[in-house]
Formats: sequence, C-alpha cells, structure tokens
Amino acid sequence: MDLKSLVDSLRNFEGITRKNLIKDVTKPLNKTYNIAGRTLLGFGDDASAIDIGNDTLLLMAADGMWGKLMEADPWWTGYCSVLVNVNDIAAMGGIPMGMTNVLSMSNKKICKEIMDGINDGVEKFGVPMVGGHFHPDTPYNALDVSITGIVGRDDPITSCGASVGDKVIFAIDLDGKQHPKFPLNWDTTTFKTPELVQAQIKVMNEIAKKHLVTAGKDISNPGAIGTLGMLLEASGAGARVEVENIPRNDAVPWDEWLKLYPGSGFVLTAREENVDETIGMLEDVNITSKVAGEIIHDKKLYLTHADEEEVVFDFSKDRIMGIKEKRS
Amino acid sequence: MDLKSLVDSLRNFEGITRKNLIKDVTKPLNKTYNIAGRTLLGFGDDASAIDIGNDTLLLMAADGMWGKLMEADPWWTGYCSVLVNVNDIAAMGGIPMGMTNVLSMSNKKICKEIMDGINDGVEKFGVPMVGGHFHPDTPYNALDVSITGIVGRDDPITSCGASVGDKVIFAIDLDGKQHPKFPLNWDTTTFKTPELVQAQIKVMNEIAKKHLVTAGKDISNPGAIGTLGMLLEASGAGARVEVENIPRNDAVPWDEWLKLYPGSGFVLTAREENVDETIGMLEDVNITSKVAGEIIHDKKLYLTHADEEEVVFDFSKDRIMGIKEKRS
Repeated sequence: MDLKSLVDSLRNFEGITRKNLIKDVTKPLNKTYNIAGRTLLGFGDDASAIDIGNDTLLLMAADGMWGKLMEADPWWTGYCSVLVNVNDIAAMGGIPMGMTNVLSMSNKKICKEIMDGINDGVEKFGVPMVGGHFHPDTPYNALDVSITGIVGRDDPITSCGASVGDKVIFAIDLDGKQHPKFPLNWDTTTFKTPELVQAQIKVMNEIAKKHLVTAGKDISNPGAIGTLGMLLEASGAGARVEVENIPRNDAVPWDEWLKLYPGSGFVLTAREENVDETIGMLEDVNITSKVAGEIIHDKKLYLTHADEEEVVFDFSKDRIMGIKEKRS
Repeated sequence: MDLKSLVDSLRNFEGITRKNLIKDVTKPLNKTYNIAGRTLLGFGDDASAIDIGNDTLLLMAADGMWGKLMEADPWWTGYCSVLVNVNDIAAMGGIPMGMTNVLSMSNKKICKEIMDGINDGVEKFGVPMVGGHFHPDTPYNALDVSITGIVGRDDPITSCGASVGDKVIFAIDLDGKQHPKFPLNWDTTTFKTPELVQAQIKVMNEIAKKHLVTAGKDISNPGAIGTLGMLLEASGAGARVEVENIPRNDAVPWDEWLKLYPGSGFVLTAREENVDETIGMLEDVNITSKVAGEIIHDKKLYLTHADEEEVVFDFSKDRIMGIKEKRS
C-alpha cells in the first residue's frame, strides 16, 4: 500500500470536495434554524432534530438524487432514494416513519422505472412513501426524497459528540457487490431479505437507546474516511486511524473501498467500555465492525499504515462542510 | 356574469387539469403506502398522516416549486416554498414543525435570492428550515421543500370527511395584491406582521382541536373551485355552490379570482350547528369566511348564479386527481 498516494487521492475525491459548497447555502439560515425554539440539532448532522414534546424528537432529512445516476439507471435511483434517506435516520439512532418525494419528469418510461425502484425500496426497508409532488412536464428528470423519523429525547446519535480517547469504529456490511455502472455504489441490500435489511436499520436504534456510542454517521458519498472527516469537523476533534483495520471486502482495492457508498455502513465513536457490546450488536446483523482508531486532541485526521503516517485533513486549514455543529 | 363561460374556463384551467396526472405516479405506491401499518391518511390529502403513538400524528407534505416561477422571481419562489408547505399543514389542522429542502442550482445569484426568500418566509411563518441537500452544479435551477407537522390523533382535518347536508365555507384573506408577474398569486402575507400571518395558520389547529369542520383543504394551484372539486372527489360527494357567495376582493374579476392561489385561503365543510363558530374564528384573524353552498348526494359540483346552474365536474365521468381517499 502506498499510503501517500492513497491519501492524496482521498483529498481530491469529488465525493468529499463537493461537500465544501454546503456552507454557502446554509449560512443565511443560521439565524433562523431555531426560530421556534424547538430545533435541537440543525445543519451538520445526517438529520435535524426537533423537539415535539412527549420525550420525542422528530428527525428530518432530505436527499436529492444525482443526475448521472438517473441517466444511467432510473430503477436504482428510485431504490437508492429510499436507501439513503432511511440510512440518514438510522445514523441518528432513529426509527424511520415515512417519506415524501418530488418527482420532476420529462419521460414516462423513466418515470415508471423510478417509481418501481421506489416501491421496491419501500418493500425492502419497510418505510412507506406517503406523499409528494409531481411535475409532469419538466425539461429534466429529477427525484428528491425527504424522510421523517423519531427518536427518544435523550437518545439521538449525533455527529458532534466524539471526545478525546473515544475509539473509532468502522461498521460495514462486507457482503455486497459493486454496481456495474457505478463502482462506488456498494450494493448490500437488493439480494438480502427485508428482515435482515430492516434489522440493520433497527440495530442503530437499539444502540442509541442504550447510549453505547458518543457519535456516529452513515457512510455516504464522501466514503468512509470523508464521513469520519465530517464527524471530526462537527465534533471539533481529530483522530488517528490505521487503514488496515477498516473492515474491507478483499475484492475491492483500498482506493475504491474508501470512497464507496455502502448499502449499510457507519462510522461510530464509543468509549472503550462500550466497544465490545456495540460491535457485538452490529455483527449480529451482518455488519462487520472493528476499532480502527482513536479520537485525539490534535485537530487532524491521520491515516497510518505500519510505521507510516499521513495527514488527510488538518482542520485548522481544511474544511469539508465547514460546519462545527452547535447543539441547542 | 356569464356563468357558462366562467365554468368552461374553469374546466379547462391548467391548474386543475395538471392534477390529472398524479394518479399515474401514486398508483404503484398504493400497495405499499401503509407498509408499516402506521399510515392513517395516504395520497389525496394536503398532507399524509402517520401514527407515532402518544396520541400524536405526523403530517408530511412536499412541494416542488414551478420552473416558470423560478425564472421570473427567485426570491418569491423561495418565500412561496415556505408558504405553500405551511399551508398544507394548516389545512390538516396541524402545527408545522420544520422543513427540509433540496436545492439544485446552476447560478449563484439566483441561489442567493432563493435562500433570501426562504429565510424571509421562515421569519414570517415562524417555521424553521432545518436541513436538506444541495446540488451545486445542475444544468437547471430547482427548489423542492418538504414539511413535517403534528396534530392530535383524533383531530386532523381531512379532504374525505364531507357528508350530505354539510355547509361549504369559503375562507379567504381578501386583503392582498396580485403578484406583478403572476396575477394568479394572491399575496396576502408579505406586507403583514408575522403575528397575524402565524395566527392565520394557528386558527386551523384550533378549529381542528374543536372538531368544528368535517373536511377542509387549502386553496392551492387549482383555485377555489378546483380545490373544492378535489375535496368532493376525495369525499365521494357533490355540492351546489352559489358563486356570488364566495368571498372576493372586488378588484379582481371572477374568472381570475376563482383561479387564484391565495396566501391564506381554505375550503371547509361543516355541520350547520358549527358554521357560526368556525366563521367567527376565521374572521378574527382577517380571513373573510362565508357559506356559499352545501354538500349534496348527487356526485356533481354545480355552480349557480341567480337562477342559472352549470355543472363544473361530474364525478361519474370527470376526474381531477382520480383519488377517492381511503382512511385506514
């Protein structure tokens, strides 16, 4: 393994660099995101949290599907619109309740394939698509989906809770295959039973209720390392991670593996005494989980391999989303 | 007034005819909309309702903003994305909790204007935009917003509850102005205080908690008559409505008035004994409200004027959304 070229490749990965623009959009909303006094978690997390009383928080997230995905495989786009949203709620330790969508279509055949994909995703993940809006006559095809879930008042798994000394756990379902057109889509769900797939979502709620982890995110477009980077940025911390300890399917080379969007994958941080129980619960639902590093005071993400060490992000000058999360 | 040409014009109004295509999209989801057994209200209402326990229902809705609106006035598009979503929750008798958005942008200047509009909408309506997704590099500009609200288990105002003999109330804030570029946008909020605008939203929750109405919808793109048509379709009923009794600002001719999207406007049905209290509550927040008709067994929407009568929709052969709402 050439650690330096791996780190260079990660630093220039579009899945990470694209996140950089989010701050320009969220900035004007910073003064109003808590206008009703109920927003517990705002921008910078996988879902936002709103206190509705009864010891319950609403979790809300939204995802727009990538245009290139739509062009290449409309069914997969519809299916993934469910997968990515459900994972956003799972990452927060919540229970997904329902989704809405906005579908903008220029082509009836593509529309049907997308709806079939959504429907198959709904059946797989067991979360209903309950409404939305349809533009029947746009000059482009687009699909945006939003999701709402719930979680106990004191239970959400946030991106901002990692503390010095916490262990960094990578948890990834290794039983998958790369999408033929999108090698960075690691499909672990289409060929599994709804029972197992839904158990992989539910385990995060169980971990949340037991307060076993201090922070967590689902591994998404920025890949395993980019996602950890966002967690560190939100937590205002750094980490040192040994690459070889990140669970990997040997069929995929490291440079691709660390950029993959896995069907079921999380980066978690936990105090040492809770590591074994957390890993045991994840492994029970086929998510291979290992400690690969530790949270450090130095605000840098180091990747190590044998006796080599490289800095992936130096948060004193690099930004991914540029958001240090505030918790109300 | 030439009643026949008014009715012909309404029947061919794009705001109504565009709704016709929704069924093709929702059809494949009919088998899965209640997959988790918690969906109380699915397609065909202003928002869907999901039972989360604790005597609370989640209300979820989504709206995609119209491309032509975006081209002409990005600020207004951002502002209206808040207005239309908040009205969807108000129409159900709910309390709006938060919104998410997916923003797809090709132009930085337009993006800023949209975000300013959203932010001004958030300040006006007091509902936070808590998260979302940003496509910084699409070949088009688009804004989709979704909202989640809550309502008591037994309190939602649905589209499907109208019964024969119920009075039909039109409730519209007449203190407004037509948007200079979009005469069918009846702006009643930009120049009013947040307190009054938020009271107009809250009154619907108060009406819902008192169970004063049997059905209701917010008047949206299909206009006052088209919206009543959707309510009748969902309820499996008809109505006879006297045009002149629909509250109107005299500055706007009838043909335009009945196609307007008002900033604050609702069609409601109520049993006779609850009409006065309902109207009183709405008038207290500057929403002019009058009984203009009655629900009838004959599944047609008749407009009357003096001794003339015309059929706007005959639901035995016409469809607007084509959805007769099922309540689980």
